[in-house]
Amino acid sequence: MSESRDVKVLGVWTSPFVMRARIALNLKQVSYDFLQETSLTEKSELLLISNPIHKKVPVLIHNEKPICESLVIVEYIDDVWTSAPSILPSHPYDRAIARFWAAYIDEKWFPSMKGISIAQGEEAKKAAIDQVIEGLVLLEEAFVKSSKGKPFFGGEQIGYLDIALGCFLAWLRVSEKMHGVKLLDQAKTPGLVKWAERFCEDPAVKGVMPETDKLLEFAKILFAKMRANLPK
Amino acid sequence: MSESRDVKVLGVWTSPFVMRARIALNLKQVSYDFLQETSLTEKSELLLISNPIHKKVPVLIHNEKPICESLVIVEYIDDVWTSAPSILPSHPYDRAIARFWAAYIDEKWFPSMKGISIAQGEEAKKAAIDQVIEGLVLLEEAFVKSSKGKPFFGGEQIGYLDIALGCFLAWLRVSEKMHGVKLLDQAKTPGLVKWAERFCEDPAVKGVMPETDKLLEFAKILFAKMRANLPK
Repeated sequence: MSESRDVKVLGVWTSPFVMRARIALNLKQVSYDFLQETSLTEKSELLLISNPIHKKVPVLIHNEKPICESLVIVEYIDDVWTSAPSILPSHPYDRAIARFWAAYIDEKWFPSMKGISIAQGEEAKKAAIDQVIEGLVLLEEAFVKSSKGKPFFGGEQIGYLDIALGCFLAWLRVSEKMHGVKLLDQAKTPGLVKWAERFCEDPAVKGVMPETDKLLEFAKILFAKMRANLPK
Repeated sequence: MSESRDVKVLGVWTSPFVMRARIALNLKQVSYDFLQETSLTEKSELLLISNPIHKKVPVLIHNEKPICESLVIVEYIDDVWTSAPSILPSHPYDRAIARFWAAYIDEKWFPSMKGISIAQGEEAKKAAIDQVIEGLVLLEEAFVKSSKGKPFFGGEQIGYLDIALGCFLAWLRVSEKMHGVKLLDQAKTPGLVKWAERFCEDPAVKGVMPETDKLLEFAKILFAKMRANLPK
């Protein structure tokens, strides 16, 4: 496995986006060094050099070349390590659908997830919660269509869209606990409820998905800081 | 060419994102029907059915199946019509770099382009102009690295990143004319100045790139409407 001789992931254990890179590497059975950023406020020299444009994790460093942006990293991993099963669907149309929903998750759904925790006032919070649930209902439909009765969006095994959405599951649970709401629920999103269980139990995911209570502690500190920095 | 028997693009002639789909089809020499939306305020039934999530152009309809989001469409076209040269670079690392910069253009650079025209006050406008130019300087560096002395980001012929950035050239010129500034200029971005000329002269682009003066007329009406709808 010569391609994997020098693989590093720059990241933090709390980041769903970092999880994407790690799950993809696990699926491909590529071993890597996980180099964690240690400060919330100061970035490491290696991160600043490796991602000078966005200065954000994750960065995959493969043979000393940095690759940035979580979904770009997942596609790269799929392109490079071709001996393990493909992460992207094999048919161009299915691939387009997976990319479409992954973009939806990042551009529309995730901002509303973030909105729950930084909303000012009960009304704004309720609106953000409704948006998150509406998004999940759309994703439930996408799941039914994409999985065609199989366990994952990607079919028999975890694929691109599973990674794109699944990486948020620990934060979803944290959000449910913090705000006393049910976001992923049996009545509206029965397929995703079962999918989420399967996803978190998968060997490629289990070791990298944060424990809810540990993440909850981190979240309380983070959101207090974020709210303190919001314009009044 | 059985794959191209039923190809439609839903769009408008003014949209850079629609241009992406059309240029990609032209590069692949796929003939298609261009179905234009006729109203700025009311969307066609076909668009609403084809892109129920975003209700936006472009939509590529191939054998009655809709594909949405311009960069997803370009990747789809590249995946389906494989007899013409590839639009994405062939090496995984180069492909990752192209995808990284395309995401940068859509998420960072384009919003600042839009910002020039909706900025309220001279100070905000100047800040937006500076941001656009800073972005172009970064893209100039990316061009030098990616093209390796060849005419395009993609090498000898137009590729993914050429399409992602090139589709904005008519709007860039409109912006320069409307605001009396030079955005793409010889001193700061000499490589891109020459690249832009080549791009617009390419047979795959020539027929779909709007004339600057015609687009300028359209832009004046559009921005007046946008400014009227901004919160005071």
